[in-house]
Amino acid sequence: MIKVHHLNDSRSQRILWFLEELGCDYEIVPYARQETRFAPEDLKKIHPLGKSPVIEDGGRIVAESGTIIEYLAATYGNGKFTPEAGSDDFWRYNHFLHYAEGSAMIPLLLALYTGPLGDAAAPLHPRIFGEIENNFSYIESELIGRDFIVGDHLTGADIQVSFVLEAANSTGLLAPYPNLQRYLAAMQARPAYLAGIERGGPYAYGPK
Amino acid sequence: MIKVHHLNDSRSQRILWFLEELGCDYEIVPYARQETRFAPEDLKKIHPLGKSPVIEDGGRIVAESGTIIEYLAATYGNGKFTPEAGSDDFWRYNHFLHYAEGSAMIPLLLALYTGPLGDAAAPLHPRIFGEIENNFSYIESELIGRDFIVGDHLTGADIQVSFVLEAANSTGLLAPYPNLQRYLAAMQARPAYLAGIERGGPYAYGPK
Repeated sequence: MIKVHHLNDSRSQRILWFLEELGCDYEIVPYARQETRFAPEDLKKIHPLGKSPVIEDGGRIVAESGTIIEYLAATYGNGKFTPEAGSDDFWRYNHFLHYAEGSAMIPLLLALYTGPLGDAAAPLHPRIFGEIENNFSYIESELIGRDFIVGDHLTGADIQVSFVLEAANSTGLLAPYPNLQRYLAAMQARPAYLAGIERGGPYAYGPK
Repeated sequence: MIKVHHLNDSRSQRILWFLEELGCDYEIVPYARQETRFAPEDLKKIHPLGKSPVIEDGGRIVAESGTIIEYLAATYGNGKFTPEAGSDDFWRYNHFLHYAEGSAMIPLLLALYTGPLGDAAAPLHPRIFGEIENNFSYIESELIGRDFIVGDHLTGADIQVSFVLEAANSTGLLAPYPNLQRYLAAMQARPAYLAGIERGGPYAYGPK
């Protein structure tokens, strides 16, 4: 059975959601954040980076959200969550799989990490918040008239994009973006999403 | 013909390198960084994010390094730069494609962006430099006894991983990692790599 190494309030919540969408059986190995909010050292026993999500499936260990999503879609998705290889939608799907963590998360993480510096970080704010606006305006425009980030049904790209929106939403940063709010609310209302929350336990970035 | 929107001293250099490995004809549209080191506004005419690399190929616009690499390998690589779909090496390849920009770059970017704050950023240093060590120790251990990050010949994952190592090397951060230095030097000595530099113009992160 698939084993998910699940850290609370982390990117692994989206893997639980995706497994529910896929209808897979899975087992959760839970980890609790330390008081510092860092992941516990125990996660390094599973993968040297000590991050979550990591999954185990038949002896194979898979790390990095984008890879886990592609692996699960390829192995258990019967083509349902991945556009046809080589199609325009496929490259759009691939783009958002890379973009969500490779680009969109960067300014959010900069804001998060420099937050404790208070006013000392003020010189960085124009750049950081300019890039947050640049990225969310882009996703906002890509969601005009769409219910999903690619095509007309859920794909792995929606699972991947969701986390950066949830992280932003938790600090009010989605306020200027009606399409992002509508899209995220629709994702968070999906039965599989809610079943993932039920299995995973309290989640700080979930629906309010 | 493939058109590469190429910003100097940026991630687009690796796309030139990959096109040389692929033996593709391509045209460069050059962009110069502003005095602030930001990309010029002109790049937004090609893709709303205003970043480089972006490529155009037969009317298709592809952005995000990982996607460009996968697109070029799938379209022009005759299977040479991608492990067999579904194999262990394929998932290792996919992991490093996501990992390089999704995880490994984060602490480097935090160090880069908070650098101008000087001592005011000192409270962040244990976390930032701890994560730099965590990530580079991981890649270092994954390169023990290997000439390539996946399998026994060059794949798109080497192209993707190279940039984070080059960025780190430029500030001396690879000093503690003999395998990373050996690997990067071998990549930077490849004829296709050097041909990419020749085409792309001066590159701050190239071989010293």
